Amino acid sequence: MNATGSELLEKLNWLSEYGKDEDGGITRFLYSKEWKDAQCALKEWLEAEGFRTHEDHVGNLFATIEGSEQPEEVILTGSHLDTVRCGGYYDGQYGIIGGALAIKKLVRERGVPKKSLQLVAFAEEEGSRFPTAMWGSKSIVHQVGAEDVRGLVDASGAVFEEEMSASGYELGVLTPKREDIATFVELHIEQGNVLEQEGLSVGVVDSIVGQRRLTITLTGESNHAGTTPMGYRKDTMHLASELISETLDQAREAGDPLVATVGQLQLGPNVVNVVPGKATFTVDIRHTDQEALTSFSEMVIANMKEKAAVAGIGIDVDLWMDAPPVPMSERVVTLMEGVCDKLALSYKTMHSGAGHDAQVFAPLVPTAMLFVPSKKGISHSPFEHTDEADLLAGVHALQETLFELAY
Amino acid sequence: MNATGSELLEKLNWLSEYGKDEDGGITRFLYSKEWKDAQCALKEWLEAEGFRTHEDHVGNLFATIEGSEQPEEVILTGSHLDTVRCGGYYDGQYGIIGGALAIKKLVRERGVPKKSLQLVAFAEEEGSRFPTAMWGSKSIVHQVGAEDVRGLVDASGAVFEEEMSASGYELGVLTPKREDIATFVELHIEQGNVLEQEGLSVGVVDSIVGQRRLTITLTGESNHAGTTPMGYRKDTMHLASELISETLDQAREAGDPLVATVGQLQLGPNVVNVVPGKATFTVDIRHTDQEALTSFSEMVIANMKEKAAVAGIGIDVDLWMDAPPVPMSERVVTLMEGVCDKLALSYKTMHSGAGHDAQVFAPLVPTAMLFVPSKKGISHSPFEHTDEADLLAGVHALQETLFELAY
Repeated sequence: MNATGSELLEKLNWLSEYGKDEDGGITRFLYSKEWKDAQCALKEWLEAEGFRTHEDHVGNLFATIEGSEQPEEVILTGSHLDTVRCGGYYDGQYGIIGGALAIKKLVRERGVPKKSLQLVAFAEEEGSRFPTAMWGSKSIVHQVGAEDVRGLVDASGAVFEEEMSASGYELGVLTPKREDIATFVELHIEQGNVLEQEGLSVGVVDSIVGQRRLTITLTGESNHAGTTPMGYRKDTMHLASELISETLDQAREAGDPLVATVGQLQLGPNVVNVVPGKATFTVDIRHTDQEALTSFSEMVIANMKEKAAVAGIGIDVDLWMDAPPVPMSERVVTLMEGVCDKLALSYKTMHSGAGHDAQVFAPLVPTAMLFVPSKKGISHSPFEHTDEADLLAGVHALQETLFELAY
Repeated sequence: MNATGSELLEKLNWLSEYGKDEDGGITRFLYSKEWKDAQCALKEWLEAEGFRTHEDHVGNLFATIEGSEQPEEVILTGSHLDTVRCGGYYDGQYGIIGGALAIKKLVRERGVPKKSLQLVAFAEEEGSRFPTAMWGSKSIVHQVGAEDVRGLVDASGAVFEEEMSASGYELGVLTPKREDIATFVELHIEQGNVLEQEGLSVGVVDSIVGQRRLTITLTGESNHAGTTPMGYRKDTMHLASELISETLDQAREAGDPLVATVGQLQLGPNVVNVVPGKATFTVDIRHTDQEALTSFSEMVIANMKEKAAVAGIGIDVDLWMDAPPVPMSERVVTLMEGVCDKLALSYKTMHSGAGHDAQVFAPLVPTAMLFVPSKKGISHSPFEHTDEADLLAGVHALQETLFELAY
């Protein structure tokens, strides 16, 4: 372990104390006391390290090293400070601590950058307390505002604007929309098992998948499990099992980068000796290509409707999420690949199957991401883990990327 | 509507007042105030009609017309007084009121029987308040006792023996095991839709199905729905859908009288964007033939274990109910068929897919059942319905059966 390694783990452990919960995870919800304490501690540390800090109207924290030649062009890096309930030590905060150490080392080794280097700790990305995923990054570019959050309550009944105000930010008071971001680079754990399975240290992310989420409701007839012959049934579990098995088979055949998941299923009445008259299940479909995403989901829906009609069972299909794929900047991706080659890091160029703050910036400014492996693909859990060597490889790749962009 | 018709509906409506709930159903749990009130009212009515009544140690109510030649041989008919929560107007009490009217009419028209005719209102059959299904009938032949129920509590925390005592029965104080029952005949609604589908008024029940109930638990890996390629998943929903679809297909192919039902399914963590690492579901399999029941369920289990091994997913199979099929008395069934022919009733000889008190007596004394249609097969619901003509046909068939047995 070299000095940087020690410092990286030490600072991750330090920040993890803010929101550490009894299950060994971190619970640091937006505008909670744990979140605010972490924000203040982070600010204090970054100032001590020589950054100039400020917050915006929603509590995104920025820490800047001003450029010597084009200070008005900002090379931004960072990730989110909030966590899911009982989250891990790396999701989000690795990109903050890693970004801070990369900039600190750059300045120490290479002096003041030409363009400004800026670290960001996004106030919120997870949507774990309020249904406001990416509230932080979207607020920076004014894609969300007071009208999207006013009156929202969390599970305990606490009101969004009151909690925000208690943290020191007033809903409706705006800092200007940021127009000075020249490039955004996000360092994050993969949250999947591709890098681990392939024995690689770094992923260069060239796109973030599009997602469609459907809820399918089948309506048949609830009947006595003993007195209703098979031929007289309108069994929604029978039809659902056929539709689910077929959809997942088709997804497997379609192959990467398509994925489909049936994560939720509820039977009605859900009793051992009653034929289920109702079955509701979700389908989550993702692909990096819009046309492939559209055609696969339309094929699935058409097939389900046809099969339901044949079975004489009612079907309702609700497409409640339809987020397009987001390509990253080719230029920044190529630059990152060059950096990984130069540093002799084992890496692959890959897509992200999960959403990230980077997808908010990518349509607006050159943007790309760097991944490091997640052991067994585990995330959103205290068992989230990345080996130290890989954590350092990610920071190293980020550091050289920022060098190329800002010096 | 003839006079008997009016009286049958009138008495059903009258008894339905005891336990009528706000949803329009009947809730009359064992040893509740509603149950005790119904018991007292029934006793009073039967005594007024000339029956001699008595109760046994658990509160089964008997009403006897003593035989003139072989009074020690009892021809027993009746059904259960208790209901499920928000049950219908016919389940159970139709067999009590119908039995009482059949005996009353027999005595009026044909005089005193040679053997004793006895009506029974079983204290409990449903197992709705305590897990004590068929507590009434099983107590008559001492198949259950204090050790099976002591300390049981209902959903509100009320203790079995205290509720029993408050109703006037002391746990552990026994009336003798009944040895004088020569034949048992039960009149009941079908609770399925076979008679309605086939346009018939009466079913002569020649057997009650055996049941096996399994709980299958699949253990794979919970993974992120976006970041885990299809090839890296251990998706229990995918495997469960294949196993369920295949099992239900096989049951359909096997055909009557085999039925299989997956009534309950629970995914873990059951979240839209997480590949389910756990799936638990039940399988309820029924058949009138023990060998067919055994071989089908063993085939299903073997197939599931094989498929799970191929998928690399853990499987646990728990066979927690294994009740054998119960054949009815051939002699009584033949007698009932003759009665239906003589009365020119449209009928079929069929099995019961549901359990009944008759299955307690069938291994001990000659026993059979008569069914009447359930509209749309609906039961355990305020929407339970049987047309008056069919209700009367059932009582008529019972009356003539009792005549053949007791006169």
